[in-house]
Amino acid sequence: MKALVYQGPGKKALEDRPMPDIADPTDAVVRITRTTICGTDLHILKGDVPTCAPGRILGHEGVGIVEKTGAGVTTFKKGDHVLISCISACGRCEYCRRGMYSHCTTGGWILGNAIDGTQAEFVRIPHADTSLYRIPSGADEEALVMLSDILPTGFECGVLNGKVKPGDTVAIVGSGPIGLAALLTAQFYSPAEIIMIDLDDNRLEVSKRFGATATINSKDGKAAEAVLKMTGGRGVDAAIEAVGVPATFELCTEIVGPGGVVANVGVHGVEVDLHLEKLWSQNITITTRLVDTVTTPMLLKTVQSKKIDPKQLITHHFKLANILDAYDTFGRAAATQALKVIIEA
Amino acid sequence: MKALVYQGPGKKALEDRPMPDIADPTDAVVRITRTTICGTDLHILKGDVPTCAPGRILGHEGVGIVEKTGAGVTTFKKGDHVLISCISACGRCEYCRRGMYSHCTTGGWILGNAIDGTQAEFVRIPHADTSLYRIPSGADEEALVMLSDILPTGFECGVLNGKVKPGDTVAIVGSGPIGLAALLTAQFYSPAEIIMIDLDDNRLEVSKRFGATATINSKDGKAAEAVLKMTGGRGVDAAIEAVGVPATFELCTEIVGPGGVVANVGVHGVEVDLHLEKLWSQNITITTRLVDTVTTPMLLKTVQSKKIDPKQLITHHFKLANILDAYDTFGRAAATQALKVIIEA
Amino acid sequence: MKALVYQGPGKKALEDRPMPDIADPTDAVVRITRTTICGTDLHILKGDVPTCAPGRILGHEGVGIVEKTGAGVTTFKKGDHVLISCISACGRCEYCRRGMYSHCTTGGWILGNAIDGTQAEFVRIPHADTSLYRIPSGADEEALVMLSDILPTGFECGVLNGKVKPGDTVAIVGSGPIGLAALLTAQFYSPAEIIMIDLDDNRLEVSKRFGATATINSKDGKAAEAVLKMTGGRGVDAAIEAVGVPATFELCTEIVGPGGVVANVGVHGVEVDLHLEKLWSQNITITTRLVDTVTTPMLLKTVQSKKIDPKQLITHHFKLANILDAYDTFGRAAATQALKVIIEA
Amino acid sequence: MKALVYQGPGKKALEDRPMPDIADPTDAVVRITRTTICGTDLHILKGDVPTCAPGRILGHEGVGIVEKTGAGVTTFKKGDHVLISCISACGRCEYCRRGMYSHCTTGGWILGNAIDGTQAEFVRIPHADTSLYRIPSGADEEALVMLSDILPTGFECGVLNGKVKPGDTVAIVGSGPIGLAALLTAQFYSPAEIIMIDLDDNRLEVSKRFGATATINSKDGKAAEAVLKMTGGRGVDAAIEAVGVPATFELCTEIVGPGGVVANVGVHGVEVDLHLEKLWSQNITITTRLVDTVTTPMLLKTVQSKKIDPKQLITHHFKLANILDAYDTFGRAAATQALKVIIEA
Repeated sequence: MKALVYQGPGKKALEDRPMPDIADPTDAVVRITRTTICGTDLHILKGDVPTCAPGRILGHEGVGIVEKTGAGVTTFKKGDHVLISCISACGRCEYCRRGMYSHCTTGGWILGNAIDGTQAEFVRIPHADTSLYRIPSGADEEALVMLSDILPTGFECGVLNGKVKPGDTVAIVGSGPIGLAALLTAQFYSPAEIIMIDLDDNRLEVSKRFGATATINSKDGKAAEAVLKMTGGRGVDAAIEAVGVPATFELCTEIVGPGGVVANVGVHGVEVDLHLEKLWSQNITITTRLVDTVTTPMLLKTVQSKKIDPKQLITHHFKLANILDAYDTFGRAAATQALKVIIEA
Repeated sequence: MKALVYQGPGKKALEDRPMPDIADPTDAVVRITRTTICGTDLHILKGDVPTCAPGRILGHEGVGIVEKTGAGVTTFKKGDHVLISCISACGRCEYCRRGMYSHCTTGGWILGNAIDGTQAEFVRIPHADTSLYRIPSGADEEALVMLSDILPTGFECGVLNGKVKPGDTVAIVGSGPIGLAALLTAQFYSPAEIIMIDLDDNRLEVSKRFGATATINSKDGKAAEAVLKMTGGRGVDAAIEAVGVPATFELCTEIVGPGGVVANVGVHGVEVDLHLEKLWSQNITITTRLVDTVTTPMLLKTVQSKKIDPKQLITHHFKLANILDAYDTFGRAAATQALKVIIEA
Repeated sequence: MKALVYQGPGKKALEDRPMPDIADPTDAVVRITRTTICGTDLHILKGDVPTCAPGRILGHEGVGIVEKTGAGVTTFKKGDHVLISCISACGRCEYCRRGMYSHCTTGGWILGNAIDGTQAEFVRIPHADTSLYRIPSGADEEALVMLSDILPTGFECGVLNGKVKPGDTVAIVGSGPIGLAALLTAQFYSPAEIIMIDLDDNRLEVSKRFGATATINSKDGKAAEAVLKMTGGRGVDAAIEAVGVPATFELCTEIVGPGGVVANVGVHGVEVDLHLEKLWSQNITITTRLVDTVTTPMLLKTVQSKKIDPKQLITHHFKLANILDAYDTFGRAAATQALKVIIEA
Repeated sequence: MKALVYQGPGKKALEDRPMPDIADPTDAVVRITRTTICGTDLHILKGDVPTCAPGRILGHEGVGIVEKTGAGVTTFKKGDHVLISCISACGRCEYCRRGMYSHCTTGGWILGNAIDGTQAEFVRIPHADTSLYRIPSGADEEALVMLSDILPTGFECGVLNGKVKPGDTVAIVGSGPIGLAALLTAQFYSPAEIIMIDLDDNRLEVSKRFGATATINSKDGKAAEAVLKMTGGRGVDAAIEAVGVPATFELCTEIVGPGGVVANVGVHGVEVDLHLEKLWSQNITITTRLVDTVTTPMLLKTVQSKKIDPKQLITHHFKLANILDAYDTFGRAAATQALKVIIEA
């Protein structure tokens, strides 16, 4: 089968690879119909993710059709249309029982990382019963690709951890796909204001279409000042970090008000300064989280009932044969205005 | 009246000062019967607290008897025995309504800081209805001095923010009075293990008497290693920072397990390094808090029903006339083994 | 001044009454600009509310302008435009500190009940600092009359107690003003489905305009069956009782699914049957609540940010001089299709 | 093998039955070392549990050693010492993912009810990975029999649902084994007062030894009056119903204070009167729950760390050969003062 393979820092290729098979009785093999590319895939390609070795098929998002199941799989059978979670969960270990699938002792984020992923014609899914989700009949399957990772990530790590409530003032730093996913899902809770902060005017424009009540281009270095002015000096109830560099995290800690939350979503590569000499008395909460995808069933319901339209995030379409073009388009997002790209397998 | 007055960095004296009077209709004047010294008073004396100007009567803890009340005070009258909260709360502003008395727009921590405090024969208490607590008849008033600040601080900032639950493993870094207050109140929730970490063997011994299940002297720099070993590599559910320096905060972030909480209690003077490059995916929560004293009524109930004995924290007694000796004893705690000192006015 | 006075069961009149004055230092006198009539006022007029004696000026809702304040009032001054809460709260007692203003030991629902109310030119408001809310400049004051009682009641007793969450299926039994208030505010949380149940087709039509995803006319006695069919036999996540008779409460307990909540909003006059022989194992929660109005500041924010439009609830307008006509219109709601009527004073 | 078999209303016998075998790949067969009898077993024997057909081996509690596992079982292997949960949970269905194992679509309470149970030499356990718990080495296995059902039931349905908090006043109506389990586990949260109410003076004496701060013999019909007197007229924060008849449930609704919780634990056979005409405005919560056993891992930790001693509940020991004597002793608890009886297989 065709598969996009990581060949070491800076290198990738569409290769012919053998079809995956059942390895454990709890596995399923899924024929991919649609997948996508994540910012994390770009990190891997830079060589920044040591758990991902050369030779790995990338991709941890997608929808498809069950091809085979192991003897221990009871929920799915050949032919079922399924959503693949980016997180594999055994449903049995201490962390899974606590709803922390991200830290499953035999799962977590392994797809397209420690094991072969979804940017291929077929993929083996471990712990299939608790890592796949049945697609309701009549659903728009392409839209559901956004539920593999980006929507639950924005929602769980940003919105839920940020404790967004009706009437709140929320700031989201970063209006790339993940910040926009937080923006879309924050609206489940009817905050009064959602301020989007970014360096890219195009993405700020997109933010307005997606429901932002205000936008700030932070390139003048005065974003904190602007937010404090907008909030009468009080700061925001929730500051969602959706970039992953020290400056954006520190901005969040400057704009959060007493009693507020800084919800980190971004993947960080270096340490940040935490100004506890100012913050120790501010009754704030800082959270980190690798998405657990425990809200996938709920997100499916909100998509089916049209409370949210994930398709808004999709800007480009490619065939699997042209996945290198898809990577190019996604990798030059500022120029191409790409958000999420769909790859049809 | 006699009062302990801050005279600028490094200087303090027992002075004669005029008796305070009602300034606002919501004020009360309280005759102090017992007060104490807080680590924060030592910070002020070093010149580290810019809100506290020379000439200020120090002290934000104590019990006493109501001497006078303003026209707007409805809950208390002359002769009532009262506990003084270290936090003044109007009960009306946005923050007070959210239970964040620490950020009351006309209160917060002002006693012995922005206004004259309790290390005196009398003190004026603003917002008396919502800043004083009636002492139940028959209560041990000396014990209740611990409820002005130290017990609610350890409990709210450490234990509640740390979300301590039955069966948890808790580490408390710092076994001074505030760490011990967290240790005592953590036991309200029956954690399985409470590990106390400090540099002072005497305080670690005290910790054991107060209920610690394990102690670690961190002077060898291997405390993190020791905690990880004790927890089978998983880390703790709650790491409570009760010192206020970068090393102890960073230790907390090293020993907290996935899904756990770092609850900062310490007063920090400088920034700390936050290793988000490791923590971004660990589903942790970091909290800061200036005590709100919203749990004072609950703590009163637990003291009255003997679920906790705050007197254990009291090691020395002085008369107000000898308050300079009290400061000396409290300031040389390692040598004197002082925890909290009572000053009788 | 003119005032609508309860004169004993079945009797009311617009009388001339002396202007109220400050009685306690925490009082304010407010000149009413707009008030309304509540279903509870009709209960009083039937003689069903023993705490309300003949001679009482009715009304517990309204907006107005502060005319006078007592010496202890610090938040408001003459000329301030204010929203009057139906609940008076001292902000000091044990219940107020717990956020249960409804059970304030010197307040609660007393306006137009134990003390004279708002259907008059002026009203005395006890505990003014914590029972009035400043109206933001530029606000539509008429719309805010809905925040005195009906919106916080639907929201707190129905939606918050019902723990409505994104993706949930909610049923609201009763689509009178209070059920509609629950319908409007439930949408703060983006439930997937909101099923409105009533006997009146007009009100069900209104429900659809207000956001209901399905409606059921229960006159055939088969509402439970219909809800179970709609939910694949599982029942609803939240069943909100907004009528106050045994049949509607029992319907709620029939349609709530395992793990769900029955949130009672209705005022009941007689006991109901609770089928614990079926429910003991169903992991359900039943809640009751007299509105606390603790969410008024949040509701003000959602109105100001246009997340909700309370004016939708207003169907008729009257002058205070014609308040008897207003009562007639409101009392014959099925015929007049009245929801809430505004009375301009 | 020997097994205690229900033979229809009023009839039971120790029979010879074939050993169970693996039926599904997720099954395990466990050799029972110790089991016990539950009040529910007595209900079955009266013919009150229609899901349990004649011919059924009774029992849903016990510890043992894994004998065989199906191909899909990954957590356990032959020889592992395990605690058997009274609730079988697939860990995959919608209810299991919500932590409501009691409503697992292919599990729940089926052991000794819809399938053969634990009062035998061997038992087949479906969904073994998520229905068995590894016993820590060195644990007192007999004590852990109390964790199959009675302790999680008292804790989850009574204490957790009752939201017991430090400083609370709690009343537990019924001091049989389940009420005592609630009493023991309520102390995890350091309530100020725990009032036990029963008709049997012996059990009230036991309650005092187990930590009750007050006891009331309700045979004079004045228990409500007594509780209100003890609480200064305010009522209790949590009233835990541990009997299962209308009178005890109604007593709970009479003694619960505003803002409090009635947590039903008892198994009810008939409907009860709910006095909503009094309760609608009292801000109370009523909960029901079939135990989910989601707290079993936590309870294991509290037993291992000696925060609770479940052995206190064990009053008698029998061999499996004498299980009919065990039933007799347990069935005449008032006379024999039996709480829980251990049966060694």
